[in-house]
Amino acid sequence: MITALRSFDELSEGQEFDFGTLSLPADEIMEYARRYDPQPFHTDPEAAKHAPLFGGLVASGLHTMGACFGRIMGGPLFREVSLGGNRIDTSWPAPLRPDEVFALKGRVEALKLPKSRPELGIATMRYTGTRVADGVVVIEMVGSHFLRR
Amino acid sequence: MITALRSFDELSEGQEFDFGTLSLPADEIMEYARRYDPQPFHTDPEAAKHAPLFGGLVASGLHTMGACFGRIMGGPLFREVSLGGNRIDTSWPAPLRPDEVFALKGRVEALKLPKSRPELGIATMRYTGTRVADGVVVIEMVGSHFLRR
Repeated sequence: MITALRSFDELSEGQEFDFGTLSLPADEIMEYARRYDPQPFHTDPEAAKHAPLFGGLVASGLHTMGACFGRIMGGPLFREVSLGGNRIDTSWPAPLRPDEVFALKGRVEALKLPKSRPELGIATMRYTGTRVADGVVVIEMVGSHFLRR
Repeated sequence: MITALRSFDELSEGQEFDFGTLSLPADEIMEYARRYDPQPFHTDPEAAKHAPLFGGLVASGLHTMGACFGRIMGGPLFREVSLGGNRIDTSWPAPLRPDEVFALKGRVEALKLPKSRPELGIATMRYTGTRVADGVVVIEMVGSHFLRR
């Protein structure tokens, strides 16, 4: 059960958060990709069959990122303290196919207090999405959050 | 004028591409963020006035990323050769406000031939979005593309 942080100072390195499970249906995958990542293996199930690395429709990595952030930012954890962020390093070790369920977890990697801005702290979070059926990681994001103190 | 690559082997390190200019209107910023990054400074112009770091509505960084990839992947450059990708490291050095125009350019940072997959090459591209009004960088993405040979 994730509750709302009231301050950056409530976080500790190594702390973990469970954001539950997600999946992306084919129609949402295609809708997202038509606008933001128009490649045949994201937009066209027939053409995707011939994609050498995938052999079928897969989610745009940007869409998977967005779905994860929708869950993270739509929940209470950072609601009262998030001031923004300035970097996310994302990798997609394996493709995500329509309706595949993955579990999203977060871990506090590092906490820093910038001298120039005493009113905030910078939390580096590692988010990992793991396909429930076989434990394969489908997305990993290391990102910085500026959080109110 | 960007034309379609027919093979990874047509790229050279240091090569540059001009993807033109983009901007995000407020209604699209709010629509994207409600689904994929629901934070008040992306979804609510009134609440955004009180955001300490922004003082007004700004685009979700994921949205800016998506708009850039929509432009890159919607154009001819990689259309015939893109097989996917597995990593993007993105930073947002400055916020992007509604209707601010930024210029998107790409540069070939590195080219690699994986021994295990002779049918493809891996191009590392650096994409930079620069606000036209003042030359400030609003997004930088370093990403890998798997490209057909």
